[in-house]
Amino acid sequence: MKDLYAARMSKIPRSFVREILKVTDNPEIISFAGGLPNPDSFPKNEIWESTDDVLKNSASEALQYSTTEGYEPLRKVIADRYAKEGLKINSDNILITNGSQQGLDLIGKIFLNRGDVVMVERPTYLAAIQSFGLYEPNFLSVPLVDDGLDIDVFNKSLKIHNPKIFYSIPNFQNPTGITYSLEKRKLIGEILKQEDIVFVEDNPYGEIRFMGENLPPIKCFLDDSVLLGSFSKIVSPGIRLGWIVADDETMHHLITAKQASDLHTNILTQMIVHRYLTGYDVENHLEMIRNMYKMQRNCMIEMIKKYFPDNVKYTEPEGGMFLWVTLPEGISSFELFEKALDENVAFVPGEAFYSDNPELNTLRLNFSNSNMEKIEEGIKRIGIAIKNLESK
Amino acid sequence: MKDLYAARMSKIPRSFVREILKVTDNPEIISFAGGLPNPDSFPKNEIWESTDDVLKNSASEALQYSTTEGYEPLRKVIADRYAKEGLKINSDNILITNGSQQGLDLIGKIFLNRGDVVMVERPTYLAAIQSFGLYEPNFLSVPLVDDGLDIDVFNKSLKIHNPKIFYSIPNFQNPTGITYSLEKRKLIGEILKQEDIVFVEDNPYGEIRFMGENLPPIKCFLDDSVLLGSFSKIVSPGIRLGWIVADDETMHHLITAKQASDLHTNILTQMIVHRYLTGYDVENHLEMIRNMYKMQRNCMIEMIKKYFPDNVKYTEPEGGMFLWVTLPEGISSFELFEKALDENVAFVPGEAFYSDNPELNTLRLNFSNSNMEKIEEGIKRIGIAIKNLESK
Repeated sequence: MKDLYAARMSKIPRSFVREILKVTDNPEIISFAGGLPNPDSFPKNEIWESTDDVLKNSASEALQYSTTEGYEPLRKVIADRYAKEGLKINSDNILITNGSQQGLDLIGKIFLNRGDVVMVERPTYLAAIQSFGLYEPNFLSVPLVDDGLDIDVFNKSLKIHNPKIFYSIPNFQNPTGITYSLEKRKLIGEILKQEDIVFVEDNPYGEIRFMGENLPPIKCFLDDSVLLGSFSKIVSPGIRLGWIVADDETMHHLITAKQASDLHTNILTQMIVHRYLTGYDVENHLEMIRNMYKMQRNCMIEMIKKYFPDNVKYTEPEGGMFLWVTLPEGISSFELFEKALDENVAFVPGEAFYSDNPELNTLRLNFSNSNMEKIEEGIKRIGIAIKNLESK
Repeated sequence: MKDLYAARMSKIPRSFVREILKVTDNPEIISFAGGLPNPDSFPKNEIWESTDDVLKNSASEALQYSTTEGYEPLRKVIADRYAKEGLKINSDNILITNGSQQGLDLIGKIFLNRGDVVMVERPTYLAAIQSFGLYEPNFLSVPLVDDGLDIDVFNKSLKIHNPKIFYSIPNFQNPTGITYSLEKRKLIGEILKQEDIVFVEDNPYGEIRFMGENLPPIKCFLDDSVLLGSFSKIVSPGIRLGWIVADDETMHHLITAKQASDLHTNILTQMIVHRYLTGYDVENHLEMIRNMYKMQRNCMIEMIKKYFPDNVKYTEPEGGMFLWVTLPEGISSFELFEKALDENVAFVPGEAFYSDNPELNTLRLNFSNSNMEKIEEGIKRIGIAIKNLESK
């Protein structure tokens, strides 16, 4: 079976992050590399009780084949949660997916012809590059600034390159932690209304805002868009539950693609999460996660101030799980990665998050999956490694 | 977002079966249409206890992100089960998927360029047509005869059309219930050894043999192939757990594609099924399923003999969940479907299972998900409807 692989496979490099995560399996390593929620944030007892309830009372349904769209009561709960945010969504316009990652794959599948242009943020979520990449588009990136997209470049790129998809993570973006301002959300909605484009708004971290004010999704200013959501950061990532919100015609195509891809999403866990969401005080649980991540984020920023040289820049996210560090020009985050790993600390060099022309002095730090002691010790060691590289 | 959908979507008709299954949600309808296991076959208590064990002792692991390849202990158990069949498989060559349906999607993704030829059985599993279809191949079908593939047509088709993939279900095929003889398995292995082709052997029903002797997978005669497996028929379909067996290089590509498609398969249910397989007498449970389906299959055949006209042909499967009916020439199974539905009985007209030139006088009957009373009553009503159509 040599040389029988499809052309699309030659374009996808194996994820470097995947390789890093293998290294950081070693418990001696302090890892800011992964994008893992803190396991202390999982509602373990509540999930256990919810599971017990489902398997005691509805095992035949929970173990049988189910509908491609997803468990209707769960879709209804998701719609109700949007209603609280002021977004009117019909549960018929929600498709349950295996995490929002599958949402990206299905969107690529139904929209992308080879050579179509996909516009992404610069930098962007690396698994989106992989996911869309398998449908062989050309990527085009628009830089992020402190309050969101660089609108001038955005406008020019729309005119010149006529992208089919624009993919954006407006809240506490992965990898940068940047959040779009309300003004930019409105402006982007207005601009996109004039374009024949698929706007894909990914919002995995939206409910993990631990400071500042909640902001409406861009979808509030642009009804005709695709919205992705996930239970990975608010319930559990291991159970792989996300969703797509889309208009009727797009839903029709998404359902066809989902059916061909895996028939339907695990119904047992859909029913478990439905029981959890309807039977417990989820808002209280979210408040616990927010407080935990806020303390970890504050600790990391404090330690960066204490241990990193003054010419290192970093973002100060109001939510989510990551912050983004820019080293002085000329210092390679790959080289820093190797030095840090010698000291048993890991992070992700920024290169992986660029669809083109990577900025090699950047890196991503995850703060959600480390305790205070590890954050202090890990940032201290990275700080020393930076100073050593500077003085070379 | 009008007209922005990818070209591949225009080629995939929405599944007619899907539409049928919506109709048959009505509990008054006797349905032989779906491909559902009998819910009485689910090991409900054992799954409940296994789940309890996982969530009590390993909740942090079961709810956290996990590896793309799948839960290593589960892959080891799958490898051990193959060893009992005489197949030596390394657990590194097993990828856990969301049901074996996702296996088809991933295989299409990594192998198919637009216009490649996919060879399938005639008729074949309709969701394989949908799944591969999204990668825009040309389909080529080889007829099935009583003991498996029509070897003459198979040989000629290989020479003339140079297919990239040959997809086959050698045990109790869906939709026909046909099983390949040992001789044909050996012969097909020998023939394929000479070809540069990806042989995909799908085996969802292999362990549901209720009469006749177990036969080795074709992979025993052709090491270089891809094998699909599933827990849907032996544990539960709702939890969406299947797997792919492939060589190292193919695994590398499959893992890249799986990662881009949904990161990994639900780890909670992987751990539950692992606990179930290692903690209970699964062979005893399978024996129960086999006995149940054997009685249902025997009842259906007995009723066909009693109520169908003599000029109706049908297969007599030694396992699985389906049998295949060929009506006298000129009688349309679509027309019969409508008449039967008027009498509250449903089945799937054969057309959906052909990649080209459907035989319109064929239909599929599922016997796994009906009790004796329903089988007797349903077959009787279909028999009357056939006679009414004949006498028109």
